[in-house]
Amino acid sequence: MAKSIFYHAGCPVCVSAEHDIINLIGKDNVEIVHLGEERNKIDDAEKAGVKSVPALVTPNENVLHINFGASIAEVKG
Amino acid sequence: MAKSIFYHAGCPVCVSAEHDIINLIGKDNVEIVHLGEERNKIDDAEKAGVKSVPALVTPNENVLHINFGASIAEVKG
Repeated sequence: MAKSIFYHAGCPVCVSAEHDIINLIGKDNVEIVHLGEERNKIDDAEKAGVKSVPALVTPNENVLHINFGASIAEVKG
Repeated sequence: MAKSIFYHAGCPVCVSAEHDIINLIGKDNVEIVHLGEERNKIDDAEKAGVKSVPALVTPNENVLHINFGASIAEVKG
C-alpha cells in the first residue's frame, strides 16, 4: 500500500491527532511532515488540497482534514 | 485492538470519508454507525464528544472530526 502523508505543524491538536493516526493505521503506513520545520513542503501540501492542519492525504489523494489546529495561512505566518 | 466507531449521516462528505477510513484502518477495525438511521445512537455519539459528522471515535476514546459534513444539531433536525 502506498503511504499516506500526515501534515502537521506541531500544535497540540496536531500531536494528539498524530498519535491517534499512527495507532490506527500503523507507523509504517504514514509519512509525517512537520510543516513548521519543513517549510519547503508547504507548497506540496497546498497542491494536495490541504487547507488546515492536521490533515492526512490518503494514498488515493483524498485529503482528510482532522479536527482543526491551524490554517495553512497561519502555518505560513 | 478495540474497534473504532465511525459516525456519519449519509452525506456525500461522510461517504467519501467512510471509504477512506475503511481503506486505511480496515473494515474489521471500525464499526460504522449511520446516525440518520440509528437515531437512538445520537446520544452515545454526543457523550463521546462528537460535534459533527463524519467523526471517528478511536479505541482510546479520542474523537477525530474528519472534514465537515453536518453538525450534530443538523443531524437531530
